[in-house]
Parts: sequence; structure tokens; C-alpha cells
Amino acid sequence: MDIVDSYFSFGGEQKVIKHYSSVNNCEMKFSIYLPPLSKSKKVPIIWYLSGLTCTHANVTEKGEFRQKASELGLAIVCPDTSPRGEDVPDEEDNWQFGFGAGFYLDATQEPYKDNYNMYSYIKNELPNVIFDNFSVDKNYQGIMGHSMGGHGALILALRNPEKYRSCSAFAPIVNPSSAEWSSTAFRKYLGEDKINWRNYDATHLIEDGARFSKILIDQGTNDPFLNEGLRPHLLKNVCDEFNLPLTLRMQNGYDHSYYFISTFMSDHIEWHYSNFNL
Amino acid sequence: MDIVDSYFSFGGEQKVIKHYSSVNNCEMKFSIYLPPLSKSKKVPIIWYLSGLTCTHANVTEKGEFRQKASELGLAIVCPDTSPRGEDVPDEEDNWQFGFGAGFYLDATQEPYKDNYNMYSYIKNELPNVIFDNFSVDKNYQGIMGHSMGGHGALILALRNPEKYRSCSAFAPIVNPSSAEWSSTAFRKYLGEDKINWRNYDATHLIEDGARFSKILIDQGTNDPFLNEGLRPHLLKNVCDEFNLPLTLRMQNGYDHSYYFISTFMSDHIEWHYSNFNL
Repeated sequence: MDIVDSYFSFGGEQKVIKHYSSVNNCEMKFSIYLPPLSKSKKVPIIWYLSGLTCTHANVTEKGEFRQKASELGLAIVCPDTSPRGEDVPDEEDNWQFGFGAGFYLDATQEPYKDNYNMYSYIKNELPNVIFDNFSVDKNYQGIMGHSMGGHGALILALRNPEKYRSCSAFAPIVNPSSAEWSSTAFRKYLGEDKINWRNYDATHLIEDGARFSKILIDQGTNDPFLNEGLRPHLLKNVCDEFNLPLTLRMQNGYDHSYYFISTFMSDHIEWHYSNFNL
Repeated sequence: MDIVDSYFSFGGEQKVIKHYSSVNNCEMKFSIYLPPLSKSKKVPIIWYLSGLTCTHANVTEKGEFRQKASELGLAIVCPDTSPRGEDVPDEEDNWQFGFGAGFYLDATQEPYKDNYNMYSYIKNELPNVIFDNFSVDKNYQGIMGHSMGGHGALILALRNPEKYRSCSAFAPIVNPSSAEWSSTAFRKYLGEDKINWRNYDATHLIEDGARFSKILIDQGTNDPFLNEGLRPHLLKNVCDEFNLPLTLRMQNGYDHSYYFISTFMSDHIEWHYSNFNL
């Protein structure tokens, strides 16, 4: 584990870390914000999963999460969105697949299965790095994300309700199996049989019995991807059908950008914190 | 005036505008944040001047100013740091001169004097664009900046105390005439005679009689430019000598980055607001 960068910020430290990922078979970067409180005790953690084309850097620079995380005493970890490197297969010029588009799943198909294992990376490997090296309490974890990362947060929470106490998302892809921009990637990573896609699809997971009761979603009404790729009503419908609570807030006029994310970031952090019942 | 981008953010609107600058003889971009209050009345304005290599975009994306500006009802305008374009003379590969390094002065030397007139641009031309087109109150103006932009904020306030009610800076260059990284640029823009540099040098302006009584400066102790280029003690010394109030806060551990700026941004905005006596 190498510290690439370290900055004082809001009384705590914003670090960028590089480490070797065994599940992804490549070097990976992530950022971690450690609030002042982490100097004296282990602090709760919120995982932030980013969207297509992003690295750890976008939300670290533009997400405006440190003020609230400092105030409440929370660590925020922002992983990369895919494996990367010369030895990792990619489709250059395709922003919806390969680098920046890991979709938080474990690939089963050649030539991707040796590297594209972001589900296991986020669920197990990266947490072990964090809990071994930083003053973070594994008993208090929340998970959030944006767009593809909102999809990631939802499936990780639905499949691991014992691990995460809360889940929130900005403009998540709620039914990636049926959206053109994600189903193409699912086919390449997971193969033709759509049965194998259901474990990585929030809407289908709920249909198949997965349950998670603390979900907050914000969605901008002027988001250009709202009706094609995101379609939060599909998640709302299935939650209603199975009597699962879901807070879905349509935010008038907001789009898909970090100007939208940063506006509601403090809300989300406070909401996770309230679910920690500290 | 063309609106390049417009985003909802914190209940207001973050816009990026392109317009033709007559004093700089080129197209220029700036950003403006309009808080929700601007829909019902004219709001006060804070000018934010950026540092070397930056455009309007850096602080607009990373400065974390919108939450507080929205809450207090303030417009924030972030101009570019120099003229730009194919017809504007530049020194490629020199980050301390030319594009991104206008130093908020009016050049007198060939071939720069037709384009490098950022002092007049910030003082007169851009304000006219703002006051003609947006719901902003010219009677309540504050000015702030970072590094080279902190220098800009200081000289504009010291030379125009009737225009600005408050001035603040993050890690400003307080005596550019004597710092190597800025004096080289001053020589090219203003000529060899250092007498002509004094009007663009905060420390010398005070020595020569300029007065401004509402100045707040934050400076990180781990800033790599602290002792070579910035040297806030030179301003402190001259303020003490002439009994001019100056709030200079040395911030332990902070560097020169936007992680430093964003940490203290809300403080600065609140301080300007308090000086508007609204």
C-alpha cells in the first residue's frame, strides 16, 4: 500500500492510495478521507462508488463530502470504477465498457474474468485493506454511489444486508439488465444467459427475494439519462410490490452532474449517519 | 454574451458564460453562481480571482462555495486568469507567464499591451457585463482570490476602496515585485522600470499610501510556495507599520491546493457577508 497523495482538509486528511489488487490482478487507486475524530477512535465508514468514465478522483475533487464527514466524524472511501493497466483488456473509445466501466460485478467471461472483479473487490478485498490500515470501524458501514455506482451500491446492499447499515444513490441504474448502455457490458462480462445477470441487477434481486430496508435515492428531473438508462420508477414499482420501503426523491431541474451530486451530498451523509444510530 | 453551460446547484444556478472582451481583445469565459434569492431581488456579489494556470473552471468545480452562497444569498463570479486564443501572445510551456498568468495588471509593453489588461477587465468591463445581465447589486461587492488571484484581490481592493467592501485571500502573493516567479512576468508586461510595478503590488501600494481596512488572509503552513513566492509576513509588516488592520491566519498543515481553499471557503464567504452589514 503506497500513499500517493495526502492533503489536510476540513481538519482531517484526504489521502490517495495505490495498492495491488489480487482479485483484479492489477494496481488500483482509491481515495480515503479521514476525519479529525479518527485520530482518537475508530470511525464509521461510507463507501462511495462512482459512475461510468470516473476514477476515484472525480468525486474526491468535486463531491463536496468532506465538510459534513469532518463534522460527523465519518471516513469516506472512493474506489476506482474498474481495473486498469496495460495488461487489462479494454475497449478503447467505448466509455460504457472496460476501463471506467466495471459495473461492480465479477466477470465470468474471457478475456475479462481475470481482471474485472469489482464486486469482490468492493465487498471484500478493499475493506480488508481499509480495516487493516486505517482507524475505521467495520461495524458501521454505509454504501452510496452515482449512476453506475448507484447500481453498485444497491446490489452490494441488497446482497449483503448484514454488512451495510444504509444505502443511498444519486441517479442510479436500477435495472441494468434491460438498459441498452449496461446490457451490452453485462453480455460481455457475464455471457449470454440473462439468468446470470440477475444477481447484479437491483430490480431483479428484489424480485428474487433480496431485501434492504434503508434506501435513499435522489434523481434529477433534467437528467438526460433518466428515461433511457436510469428509470428509477422500475425500482419504485418493485419495492411497492414487495412492500419494501424506498425513499425516492425527484429533484426538480437537476441533471446528472457533480453539481447535482454535491448539492445533496450532505443530505446523504447525514442520512447514513442517522442510520448508524450512534 | 453566450451561456455555455447552466446547472442547477444548491437551489440556484451555476452558469458558464462566454463573451467578447474589448479590453483584452479576445473571447473570455467566466462562471457565475446565482443563489435562489437572486430570483426575487438583486444580491450582493463576491469576485473570486484564481491563481496561476487556472481558468474559471478550477474553483467552480472544486471551490465548494455554492452551499454557503446559496444559504446567504450571494452571487459568486469566477473570471479566467488571462486572455486566451490563437491571436494572443503567449509563452507555451511557461506556466508563470502568458495564458493562465495575467497577474491582474494592464500591460504596457509590446506585444502584450493589446491583450493583457486583466486589471481593467476585472475592475470595469466584466462588472458591466454582470450588472447589465444578472440580478446583482453593485452596491455590495467583495473580492477574494487565491495565490496570484489573492494578489489580484488585494491590489483591486487597495486601489478601489470605494468599490469593494471587503477583501480576502487564500495564500496570496503579497509582494510580486520581489518574488522571482512574478517579477519575471512583471518585467515583460510592465517594462524594466520598477516604479511602474508598484501600482500592482499590495505591499508597495500600502507603502505608497493606499488603504483598505477589511482584509482577511488564510495561509497554510505546509504551502510549498510560502517562503519563496508568497511571504505574507511582508504584508503583515507593512500593515503593522502603517496601523492597517489585517487578519492573517496561519493554518497549520495546509498546503496550496483546493483542499486548503475549500476548507476555509465558507469562512471567507461568511466574513464578506458580515462586512456587507445587510
